[in-house]
Amino acid sequence: MAQAPFSTIEAFRALLSDAPGADEAARAGAAARNGQLTKPPGALGRLEDLAIWYAGWRGDARPQIDAPQVIVFAGNHGVTARGVSAFPAEVTVQMVANFNAGGAAINQLAKAFGATMDVVALELDRPTADFTQGAAMSEAELVAALAAGWVAVDPRADLLVTGEMGIGNTTSAAALAHALFGGAPEDWVGRGTGVDDTGLALKAGVVAEGLAANPGAVGDPLEALRCLGGRELAAMAGAIARARIERIPVILDGFICSTAAATLERAVPGALDHAVAGHVSQEPGHGRVLGALGKAPLLSLGMRLGEGSGAALAIGVLRGAVACHSGMATFAEAGVSDG
Amino acid sequence: MAQAPFSTIEAFRALLSDAPGADEAARAGAAARNGQLTKPPGALGRLEDLAIWYAGWRGDARPQIDAPQVIVFAGNHGVTARGVSAFPAEVTVQMVANFNAGGAAINQLAKAFGATMDVVALELDRPTADFTQGAAMSEAELVAALAAGWVAVDPRADLLVTGEMGIGNTTSAAALAHALFGGAPEDWVGRGTGVDDTGLALKAGVVAEGLAANPGAVGDPLEALRCLGGRELAAMAGAIARARIERIPVILDGFICSTAAATLERAVPGALDHAVAGHVSQEPGHGRVLGALGKAPLLSLGMRLGEGSGAALAIGVLRGAVACHSGMATFAEAGVSDG
Repeated sequence: MAQAPFSTIEAFRALLSDAPGADEAARAGAAARNGQLTKPPGALGRLEDLAIWYAGWRGDARPQIDAPQVIVFAGNHGVTARGVSAFPAEVTVQMVANFNAGGAAINQLAKAFGATMDVVALELDRPTADFTQGAAMSEAELVAALAAGWVAVDPRADLLVTGEMGIGNTTSAAALAHALFGGAPEDWVGRGTGVDDTGLALKAGVVAEGLAANPGAVGDPLEALRCLGGRELAAMAGAIARARIERIPVILDGFICSTAAATLERAVPGALDHAVAGHVSQEPGHGRVLGALGKAPLLSLGMRLGEGSGAALAIGVLRGAVACHSGMATFAEAGVSDG
Repeated sequence: MAQAPFSTIEAFRALLSDAPGADEAARAGAAARNGQLTKPPGALGRLEDLAIWYAGWRGDARPQIDAPQVIVFAGNHGVTARGVSAFPAEVTVQMVANFNAGGAAINQLAKAFGATMDVVALELDRPTADFTQGAAMSEAELVAALAAGWVAVDPRADLLVTGEMGIGNTTSAAALAHALFGGAPEDWVGRGTGVDDTGLALKAGVVAEGLAANPGAVGDPLEALRCLGGRELAAMAGAIARARIERIPVILDGFICSTAAATLERAVPGALDHAVAGHVSQEPGHGRVLGALGKAPLLSLGMRLGEGSGAALAIGVLRGAVACHSGMATFAEAGVSDG
């Protein structure tokens, strides 16, 4: 496997800061084409914006989606010792086996939307440290997790979805979102895989303890990721950063994915310009994170599974948008009067 | 082409009244399977309800979607003489040529989601009468249009989307919705393909005139369809009725499709139990019609094109739902602890 071109957090940040933007000529060409297609102006709504955005990042005014990649990252969390999940920690490794056997929801969705799917299990026998007792990861561990995400991206992919599996990781994401965006712990915790009211209160308390134990997390997004995140969150951030540099558009999944991605945008504004929000989940913090990022979700179907499932479903929306944009006739080609 | 099994409106209504419901055993089987799949209960949100609903109508607890059919019906409207559209009436026939040549948005979406697509042009050289002067269609004309929709459905299809093209048909749908659901003309008119404020006020006036000229339309849904609808609206209603009888699930498209379909539900309560709302369009009356029907849209992307485009895009959501339901492993199969 290729090696990531960074070995420190500062080098990672520098790569992200130097990333090129979208191709403005391709974007303008796509906007011009959009105005000539056989439909009333604006009648395809957000599909038009999506197609133009996609064209800009791919550097092609009439692009196709041929090679979407879904990557599911899995990690284990020391904070599960605090009883924050409705499922036992061994479910992480069991679900990785299910991903590899093709039996999970994300397998079906990746297949349905023509995406390849990779599974990256990140040191499942070595959970991160319990963040209520100090930093979840050392700097070396964070760099290794970012790098694992970075190298997992296929540079020939033309669309990326990152998903996650990790019992306890809604608690980690809630603590990270709290560090990134402020507010109260209660703003960021939800029922995850299904905790009751007592579990919810416990999660809020654990989030508060996490911030108290890691005062350096506030005001430094990548430090927050190190102190409060997990390996699968960091790997998603690494993959999404790589996609930014390779100009591969990204569809963000739910609360955990979006919060991991938000560390990039908070560290380097514009770092998520190549990303759209695939859906808004049932986890209440997710809508808040998307609002803070200024990203309107494509779907709102009450999903809260993770794995990349909501984003994978949204591949269909983007595929439809690009198919219309690149496949439709113009008024002139079709001999249709344009109003 | 096969003949429709009705030659009067009453016979059509009787067929719809006698239509069988969903298969409750298949539905219960699907619900039981859903509870065993490797995900937290309810974590796939609306996808779970969709899959169970689809299973019930197909009579198969573990169904597949193999043969979706999109049918686009086109008709012309005498009311265009009143200047209610931003596009000239000849665009209807031009767009039919575009559909047949594969150049319209719906062609791209049908192809992207693996659906066959049929185009049915309904006497384009013989527009319906201007409904501000009396009934748009005779009883024989309504029956013929319902029958054209009925016979266009492939009984081997396992999913149906009906779309429409007809310059002037948002005005027809607005008048029909006003007759079906009451309120004020302004509640049901929108910008259609792009009229300005003056055009919008004109449309509201034309709708009011239409109801005044057709007093029998209020309180009799199928009579409202005859007096205020158009051939493509009636054909969509005929196709959706046929699907109900064949137990083929339907995804409703935008304002015009949903209003045409609403005549069935108003005539025979339960007639749309086999239908979901694919999206909510930018046309303001659409959300009101869906609210009256009690149907929550799957997508909300600001689309307002018609042609079946929003519903075709929603095929992707339903495909994803059914793929998860029928393809996922159970906890027992995967050896995953179920919380």
